[in-house]
Amino acid sequence: MKRTHHCGAISTANIGETVTLNGWVQTRRDLGGVLFIDLRDRSGIVQVVFNPAYSGEALQIADRVRSEYVIAVSGKVVKRDAETVNANLPTGEVEVQITEIEVLNAAKTPPFFIEDGVEVDESLRLKYRYLDLRRPEMQKTLWLRSKAAKVFRDFLDGEGFIEVETPILTKSSPEGARDYLVPSRVHPGEFFALPQSPQLYKQLLMVSGVERYYQIARCFRDEDLRADRQPEFTQVDIETSFLTQDDLLGMMEQLMVRLFRETKGIELETPFQRLSYADAIGKYGSDKPDLRFGLELIEVNDIVATSGVKVFASVIEKGGEVKVLNAKGCGTWSRKEIDDLGPFAARYGAKGLAWIQVKEGEFRGPIVKFFNEQEIEALKERTGAEEGDLLLFSADTKKVVADVLGNLRLKIGRQLGLIDDNVFKFAWVVNFPLLGWDEDQKRYVAEHHPFTRPREEDVALFDTDPGQILAQAYDIVLNGYEVGGGSMRIYKRDVQEKMFAAIGLSQEEAQDKFGYLMDAFEYGTPPHGGIAFGFDRLVMLLSGRTNLRETIAFPKTASATDLLMNAPAEVDATQLEQLHIKVALKKLAEETK
Amino acid sequence: MKRTHHCGAISTANIGETVTLNGWVQTRRDLGGVLFIDLRDRSGIVQVVFNPAYSGEALQIADRVRSEYVIAVSGKVVKRDAETVNANLPTGEVEVQITEIEVLNAAKTPPFFIEDGVEVDESLRLKYRYLDLRRPEMQKTLWLRSKAAKVFRDFLDGEGFIEVETPILTKSSPEGARDYLVPSRVHPGEFFALPQSPQLYKQLLMVSGVERYYQIARCFRDEDLRADRQPEFTQVDIETSFLTQDDLLGMMEQLMVRLFRETKGIELETPFQRLSYADAIGKYGSDKPDLRFGLELIEVNDIVATSGVKVFASVIEKGGEVKVLNAKGCGTWSRKEIDDLGPFAARYGAKGLAWIQVKEGEFRGPIVKFFNEQEIEALKERTGAEEGDLLLFSADTKKVVADVLGNLRLKIGRQLGLIDDNVFKFAWVVNFPLLGWDEDQKRYVAEHHPFTRPREEDVALFDTDPGQILAQAYDIVLNGYEVGGGSMRIYKRDVQEKMFAAIGLSQEEAQDKFGYLMDAFEYGTPPHGGIAFGFDRLVMLLSGRTNLRETIAFPKTASATDLLMNAPAEVDATQLEQLHIKVALKKLAEETK
Repeated sequence: MKRTHHCGAISTANIGETVTLNGWVQTRRDLGGVLFIDLRDRSGIVQVVFNPAYSGEALQIADRVRSEYVIAVSGKVVKRDAETVNANLPTGEVEVQITEIEVLNAAKTPPFFIEDGVEVDESLRLKYRYLDLRRPEMQKTLWLRSKAAKVFRDFLDGEGFIEVETPILTKSSPEGARDYLVPSRVHPGEFFALPQSPQLYKQLLMVSGVERYYQIARCFRDEDLRADRQPEFTQVDIETSFLTQDDLLGMMEQLMVRLFRETKGIELETPFQRLSYADAIGKYGSDKPDLRFGLELIEVNDIVATSGVKVFASVIEKGGEVKVLNAKGCGTWSRKEIDDLGPFAARYGAKGLAWIQVKEGEFRGPIVKFFNEQEIEALKERTGAEEGDLLLFSADTKKVVADVLGNLRLKIGRQLGLIDDNVFKFAWVVNFPLLGWDEDQKRYVAEHHPFTRPREEDVALFDTDPGQILAQAYDIVLNGYEVGGGSMRIYKRDVQEKMFAAIGLSQEEAQDKFGYLMDAFEYGTPPHGGIAFGFDRLVMLLSGRTNLRETIAFPKTASATDLLMNAPAEVDATQLEQLHIKVALKKLAEETK
Repeated sequence: MKRTHHCGAISTANIGETVTLNGWVQTRRDLGGVLFIDLRDRSGIVQVVFNPAYSGEALQIADRVRSEYVIAVSGKVVKRDAETVNANLPTGEVEVQITEIEVLNAAKTPPFFIEDGVEVDESLRLKYRYLDLRRPEMQKTLWLRSKAAKVFRDFLDGEGFIEVETPILTKSSPEGARDYLVPSRVHPGEFFALPQSPQLYKQLLMVSGVERYYQIARCFRDEDLRADRQPEFTQVDIETSFLTQDDLLGMMEQLMVRLFRETKGIELETPFQRLSYADAIGKYGSDKPDLRFGLELIEVNDIVATSGVKVFASVIEKGGEVKVLNAKGCGTWSRKEIDDLGPFAARYGAKGLAWIQVKEGEFRGPIVKFFNEQEIEALKERTGAEEGDLLLFSADTKKVVADVLGNLRLKIGRQLGLIDDNVFKFAWVVNFPLLGWDEDQKRYVAEHHPFTRPREEDVALFDTDPGQILAQAYDIVLNGYEVGGGSMRIYKRDVQEKMFAAIGLSQEEAQDKFGYLMDAFEYGTPPHGGIAFGFDRLVMLLSGRTNLRETIAFPKTASATDLLMNAPAEVDATQLEQLHIKVALKKLAEETK
């Protein structure tokens, strides 16, 4: 009984036709000897009817089927009676009068209902992922993900990019701590590593003259897992030669325009806003600001430095800063509501949270008394404080102030309903610092990665003040998430050597770890640069989800476990022997004492 | 100096235009103070000229550039003088008179010439893969591979397939000996395995109701490497629900038609020939026959059983067989030429190679005297032996006869020029046995894999004669290579249990290893089946190469080494400690004593 139509495609246009459908029993109802089955396939649902008047033997067979049975049925499409039309179903105006049925497979009662919005423990869903994926919203996400990949590919193909597959079995990187390792059977005591990204290979492809490369690449990172991280993840990896940063960013904007048009029917405006890293941190307390709303942070050092609030003065003296978030309209909050912000702010390092309410025309709150009239006026003007506003102060190092007020901004923006879930607001964050000082290691570390090109005008700073160098690096942010990032790359050996030296690699170490790359730079390497998009996260945002696991067919849990296959798992001793390794648990036993 | 044109795109249509090119110096020639540079980018080559008459300072700068320098140049496109036109170059009618140059990067002399057909040691090429890939034929192969992937995707997308990514970090399979293992940091003593194929995931996607799935998937196999194997390889992985084998094979034929049309401009004829496994072995001595030529093997048991050739009689008595390959036109070969076939045949297990020449109207050769006239006549008729033919006899077990004559057939076909490299001859091999007897393990093993569905009519044989069961499995062969294979899958628990029992798995073992799959079968699994194409090999055949490494951007050597990155490699002890493993070389030390 070969399918002639998909369930969801049956409409009034098919009335009178005999159709054959294949699918799953969503529900069955027996109304006085007439059997109604909602039949589901990946396209949707249609009602099929078994009636003694026309179904004959098929009715007896159908009587035995239960939810999730797989069946094939044939029958005539008819219009439903006016009173039985189901307006909630796209196929709700018709039904199929079945004359033939074949049970393709039976089904036990599933551990949870196969429908959207059902409250099921996630670990049960992951264990029975093959049932969970039957739910319409999961099917829709799989489709969206596939479609998004297609749009990426079609766009890049049209721009002359070629897809190149790079190795998964590769070499452990210098920051090897997060590498997954793979012991080699053929080379005892040696290991491959799974790539954290195809970074070096894509740069070598530029040395090869490929000029425009892309790959939807699987990447791996063995790190402490957070809710929004997966040990294996997918990135759309892109690299180009001979383009400037502006060329590349413009092209990527067009890619996003096409992606949102073809998957969401949304027209994005271009060019995307460009923010320096300094401005992003300064105004939004984040290098991935949510720009769907305002509530910018306001520096007030000069106004409060001489006020009677001693902590402000002392913070400023130590090189810190004082900033204000004007929570518009929160001036009417109760003392309790305001106090409740304290623990939230503390999570981000705040030692306290000073505030001022604007009520009945005047500033109110515990710290108001420490300001003189002039300072009050200056604060009013600087922060635009009006009747009903709430000023929240953070005074600390720049980093803590950004974290505290950046997160308060998001919380209050959400609370005030300033964030429109239907808006997609992209921006580029640019001019990142090239190097950051690592207090633990007492050395500079690469903020992006050590292949990032400094701005031409900053190269001389390697010798004088490396911390001041700005990078030709960029992140693409969307609604408060970083959805991609990249940089122009170093392509000259001398600059690469300066960079390695700046992050504390000796010449020998650099040669040992990256010799092939620096060698490659000497054989005619073109200027190049690229970007990688976090595909899982983009799909998450496109599908309106808030959990990466919802966008991945077979994800791992937060503790890096595959509950369906039960992996990782112990293996046979002979397998390990052939790989020349042994399990060594001693160390752990000590640690867990 | 932003590129306005690609080098290979400059033609007489551009004459008079000022263009800016970016690329690599292929060659430079100084002819009496005028400098000619062949400039190369990924599109091709164009000649650019520096002449004191118009180049000014650019000439001095250009004078310093050498092969593989990366430069940007601007100038006017002009027609070449008639006598300097280079008919070998698509851009050979024009040249560019340069007025501006910028050296983007310098280059040392590369370790080998960047051009096709140069004899270079492969290990040197792999070490400097980034230079090797600059050669036009390597660029062409990368393009072809990318294009082929695009055609697969476009076709499958058009047929309603969705692309789903399945995990790379998964569970070790029951035939785990070939698995690459990955120790887990979070779960001490436990291991992930890299997938040999996404087989189980794709079947679970069918249980999920995805109905049509594909993925261009990376797969891994840690086995003894042969010249044509790679530790990681790419397959186009496809699975469908509700289709019959015929439906699927027909669709895949259309996929191949589109692939060859869009990458080679070749129109394949459909339907492809379908051969049973028994016929493939019987007629061609191979389950992946090269069908570009005839030379079929001919069984002659009945004719030779009673002849005076004792070895024939004894082989037949023991259940073996005697077959003939009629090497058309080789009857004129010298005795030495014929004898030289002996060692070749021996490689495939032949204990000897009997032969008969048809010369001057009669059978000649050492064994002729053992045949009577009737037998000679019967042989003539059966083999179609004519003047100038050479009959080669193999007598042994069926397997040895197939191997010997199958390989002789290929050798002689090639030698006689019967094989046209421009012909692409596809066929399906079907009706494989489901199970094969493993003499070492004294048990049946799955010929394809244990999820392969037996023919409906053969299921009862599980209880009586499992070795006779034929599978709903199929290979797609092209010019003597297996380029893909698949099967309809078992989708009912009871059949799957019979299969596991047949290959010697106890119920507990089966449940332990495949419990989730058999459980899944109980929740409404549709009939399903699929195929996987060996993408590397298909690209190899499409590009006319004979070595898989030529089709992979960064391949590993035959000993599974990445010569460019120098992987695998030793890693830090702390890394291993964090992964709860130790290197254990003792065993090896013993082995190599």
